[in-house]
Amino acid sequence: MTSASTISDPVALATRLIACPSVTPARGEIFAALEAMLTPLGFTVDRFVSGEAPDGPVENLLAHRTTGPGRHFAFAGHLDVVPPGGGWTSDPFAPEIRGELLYGRGAVDMKGSIAAFVAALADLPDALPGTISLIITGDEEGPAVHGTLALMERMEARELWPDLCLVGEPTSVNRLGDMVKIGRRGSVNMWISVAGTQGHVAYPHLADNPIPRLVRILTAIEAEVLDEGTDWFQPSNIEITDLEVGNVAHNVIPAAATARISIRFNDRHSGASLIERISAIAAREGGAVEAKISGEPFLTPPGDFSTMISGAIAQVTGITPELSTSGGTSDARFLAKLCPVVEFGLCNATMHKLDEAVAIPDLHALKAIYGLIVRQALGGQER
Amino acid sequence: MTSASTISDPVALATRLIACPSVTPARGEIFAALEAMLTPLGFTVDRFVSGEAPDGPVENLLAHRTTGPGRHFAFAGHLDVVPPGGGWTSDPFAPEIRGELLYGRGAVDMKGSIAAFVAALADLPDALPGTISLIITGDEEGPAVHGTLALMERMEARELWPDLCLVGEPTSVNRLGDMVKIGRRGSVNMWISVAGTQGHVAYPHLADNPIPRLVRILTAIEAEVLDEGTDWFQPSNIEITDLEVGNVAHNVIPAAATARISIRFNDRHSGASLIERISAIAAREGGAVEAKISGEPFLTPPGDFSTMISGAIAQVTGITPELSTSGGTSDARFLAKLCPVVEFGLCNATMHKLDEAVAIPDLHALKAIYGLIVRQALGGQER
Repeated sequence: MTSASTISDPVALATRLIACPSVTPARGEIFAALEAMLTPLGFTVDRFVSGEAPDGPVENLLAHRTTGPGRHFAFAGHLDVVPPGGGWTSDPFAPEIRGELLYGRGAVDMKGSIAAFVAALADLPDALPGTISLIITGDEEGPAVHGTLALMERMEARELWPDLCLVGEPTSVNRLGDMVKIGRRGSVNMWISVAGTQGHVAYPHLADNPIPRLVRILTAIEAEVLDEGTDWFQPSNIEITDLEVGNVAHNVIPAAATARISIRFNDRHSGASLIERISAIAAREGGAVEAKISGEPFLTPPGDFSTMISGAIAQVTGITPELSTSGGTSDARFLAKLCPVVEFGLCNATMHKLDEAVAIPDLHALKAIYGLIVRQALGGQER
Repeated sequence: MTSASTISDPVALATRLIACPSVTPARGEIFAALEAMLTPLGFTVDRFVSGEAPDGPVENLLAHRTTGPGRHFAFAGHLDVVPPGGGWTSDPFAPEIRGELLYGRGAVDMKGSIAAFVAALADLPDALPGTISLIITGDEEGPAVHGTLALMERMEARELWPDLCLVGEPTSVNRLGDMVKIGRRGSVNMWISVAGTQGHVAYPHLADNPIPRLVRILTAIEAEVLDEGTDWFQPSNIEITDLEVGNVAHNVIPAAATARISIRFNDRHSGASLIERISAIAAREGGAVEAKISGEPFLTPPGDFSTMISGAIAQVTGITPELSTSGGTSDARFLAKLCPVVEFGLCNATMHKLDEAVAIPDLHALKAIYGLIVRQALGGQER
């Protein structure tokens, strides 16, 4: 694994990583494998375990290499994978090449990208000034409470502040390079509860039915227009995802009723502003709101960084990527607090699915793109 | 039990009936006990068993005595009782007198009334012309599918058509005689289902959320004014009694949503007309309705029969009863198809409760009231 020819081959590196089972939350063998790849390249590797059951323990890896003053460029990603499920053609943790495809859990999400990070770094000119770091967690596919957030605390303690960060999530859709994510919507779930007074349906004047009040709250929420979208985001959206009363008695007016809503929102809002807004609507009918913010939105406005990435993609693939903010959340929502963050990686068609696979030419192309990006990031002008 | 003194004592008769356990659906011993009371009084007793598990088998008893041409007056009621539950001061099926109260399950609902029926009949003048019948089921407290309906079929087969019917349900509230029921509201439950298309909350354009459509249906239902009430009925009322989605995944738009409503309605409506009305509202949003009619409303408009009953009550107790249509359903909803029906019986404060008990003076007074009613019904002028 320490030979220069192997360490610059993204296919060999991806094969090595896929062979380490790492269902979320991950630790141990898979991190040792990555450490063994980075140490020969001159990286200082800091592995640490965070959290306890049920969401942990989780392993995290922070690697950095400084070769003189200059910019600090970070790659970010995760080594954990979602459970493979049954029905695979070959063992999900025994990587297998069939035709042009390398099969295995994590091939695109995102051991293939991490292999491309390492292979690109292996081929960099030695004298490139600046700092390169890798921010790698074992807890992105799970609750994500002991992963990237713990890494950011560790970076703060070590005064490691990246200037630019690329997250290697599989953002490509139909062809490698067709989509880059420059932002993500935020996400919040809320539980709206209305309490009433139980009673018999024959004597409604002695009861207080909470359901009509919940219906009025939901009608008001459905009528809310959060925004019309922005240049870079689609309109924020509210979905009512559950209703719950649980009253089995046909002749009884129930004592309580609950609804759950899920909001995906753009950078016109914050989780807190939406909780306040929905709480005010609920309060008009005596309802109460509990909420859990899954992620705040982030946007890295199109500019030098996205132009640099688009240029590297175009140079290697001939494709000009769409700059998008669509889809679910990723750890970029945390990292965006540090510096401009953009996400770019492999095609996501097979991610989280049976027979997850990466096209071998894509691994080589991605290595080339990542290499161009690092060179330009460290060698380029100030933002 | 065949001695004249015992058979005209409503306390002895009630004690005998309470001593026969008869949790719904009832049959056997309790019916034999009633038959043994009626045969010496010259009644022809027809006992038969209807239905199968789980709602049956149920015993029913149809007794009649004709002493020449004239009107046909019927007493109706039930010998089954609701389960006693734990925590009674004395055995619920071992009748016990403490002070002025006779304790036992069914004391007021409604073995006490049936004892008063029999005691009143035992003291009637022999020569009173006309027909008297007793329509007694063992299935009023349960599903009521093999009880009074089966008795009505049997009456039709025997060409027994009552002119007037008194149901002995415990209608008195604070004092014996303070309330008579001249009607009851109908009752129907409906299940409103809306189907959609499941999907991820991040991609709502690929899904079809059924919950907002259900909310719009419920909003429209809440806005419905069925009526403003009538001279004898309070306004019909709709209650939403349950909401059900059952979606545990926070990020999933569910495939279906259901609500249950319960309508208590007066004689401006029928179960069928309400099902049609709610179905039309649901259909506007693609919803479907399933319904179960528990009972149609009935009204015996105030007139000769209620005046006769009020007069008998006033003569014995000094109280002028309120004529009411309040409360839940009873078997009177079926019998009202045959002839004018009025419900009158003991105080209902302890019915369906622990330590159910009847005041012994009330049993004697009720016997006297029932005796006056039968005499006037058979001796009175045509309606």
